[in-house]
Amino acid sequence: MDNKPALHTCISPALLHLYDLSNSIIVIIDIFRATSTIAAALYNGAKAVIPVDSVPKAIDISKNIDGIAAGERDGKVAEGLEHGNSPLEYAKEFIEGKTLVLTTTNGTRLLQMALDKNADTIISGSFLNLSAVCDYIVAEKKNVILGCAGWKDRFNLEDTLFAGAVINRVKKEFTIHCDSSLMAEIIYAKHKNNLTSFAPKLTHYHRLVERFGLIEDIKYCLTPDAANILPVYRNGKLIVE
Amino acid sequence: MDNKPALHTCISPALLHLYDLSNSIIVIIDIFRATSTIAAALYNGAKAVIPVDSVPKAIDISKNIDGIAAGERDGKVAEGLEHGNSPLEYAKEFIEGKTLVLTTTNGTRLLQMALDKNADTIISGSFLNLSAVCDYIVAEKKNVILGCAGWKDRFNLEDTLFAGAVINRVKKEFTIHCDSSLMAEIIYAKHKNNLTSFAPKLTHYHRLVERFGLIEDIKYCLTPDAANILPVYRNGKLIVE
Repeated sequence: MDNKPALHTCISPALLHLYDLSNSIIVIIDIFRATSTIAAALYNGAKAVIPVDSVPKAIDISKNIDGIAAGERDGKVAEGLEHGNSPLEYAKEFIEGKTLVLTTTNGTRLLQMALDKNADTIISGSFLNLSAVCDYIVAEKKNVILGCAGWKDRFNLEDTLFAGAVINRVKKEFTIHCDSSLMAEIIYAKHKNNLTSFAPKLTHYHRLVERFGLIEDIKYCLTPDAANILPVYRNGKLIVE
Repeated sequence: MDNKPALHTCISPALLHLYDLSNSIIVIIDIFRATSTIAAALYNGAKAVIPVDSVPKAIDISKNIDGIAAGERDGKVAEGLEHGNSPLEYAKEFIEGKTLVLTTTNGTRLLQMALDKNADTIISGSFLNLSAVCDYIVAEKKNVILGCAGWKDRFNLEDTLFAGAVINRVKKEFTIHCDSSLMAEIIYAKHKNNLTSFAPKLTHYHRLVERFGLIEDIKYCLTPDAANILPVYRNGKLIVE
């Protein structure tokens, strides 16, 4: 037995009950696109991202703090909002110094579930901030849950690929006895050099690209370290400490 | 759009609610070891296998029909039973003409869940009867759910490898838009020629081999078509029609 901390991969929010979050860091992963948008907005100078679970709440909160209400439902800008869930919407010129109030289909929901389960620490992970996530979890020496947001509880490969990328980098620092983590690492090892050409095989790619033409979003969301900051959840907000 | 039937892979019983079983064949998959034992017992001449959800029920039913009560809990012979969940226990000399009343940790439970969800048809799949499963689902031309029993709702790779083996053989006959199926096929394609040398990496291998020394079980359970019959669930029993 070694006494390294444990790392598990939770491949759907519907499986979160299997894991003890109370003494763990959970990495919320919603590659297409919530956690990529969170990384991009904070990297480009947003003061904070406030994740909320409904459009009315996003509008209410954003009014009170002079923030930007944004979000998507089923892959497009949510009805009643002017801004969506594309990381490319949040360039420095637009978002610097502002607070983004964001509601999304999957990522926001998983974050709320992690709160309800009293996670020790919640951070947000995406390829855009891969190194920041890896550096943080290695330095903290706590148990880690890589929490894939999936799509309405379904497994998806883009979140799993990111989990695999993290495992590939940090595995020597953790005890990993978990078939989900092993699977994620195998899939990532096979496709790490062709992520963008593999993407058209993914269910969610079709949703985003064929229906909404979001190919630039996809490419950006698969770019390692393009917005390499660490969003940590503190008192209702994702911030860079 | 083509009008081939759809095939999905359900990678944990906790995700079964995402799938419509009412017009689908569900393949129950519990490679280590329930569905391997079911295939072996029926191949070796058992009249039927009756899956039940508790040890007392297994004992009661087996008494009434002069059957063999068998089952496992947490990988070993269940307390109160003399026979376990090893396919190698059910050689022809022992099981021919008898009815096996079987209770297991995961496979039995998933089968009961499929019944509760009014599955159109329930069959049992394992490497031992891979060809029989593939031939059947191709011939039926119905929607298919490959149902991985997992381990207490956790994802496992052995069930996924079998799902991948099925997909690898039948994919031209089905419409498959499902990241779980794509993942299963990738994992299987990578390891199809080294299943037994890959097995020691799996969580459940450690449970069975390091704790209970069941290496011969593992090898047998990974042998394609070693007991190539089709167990179909009819009126409370798995039988060969």
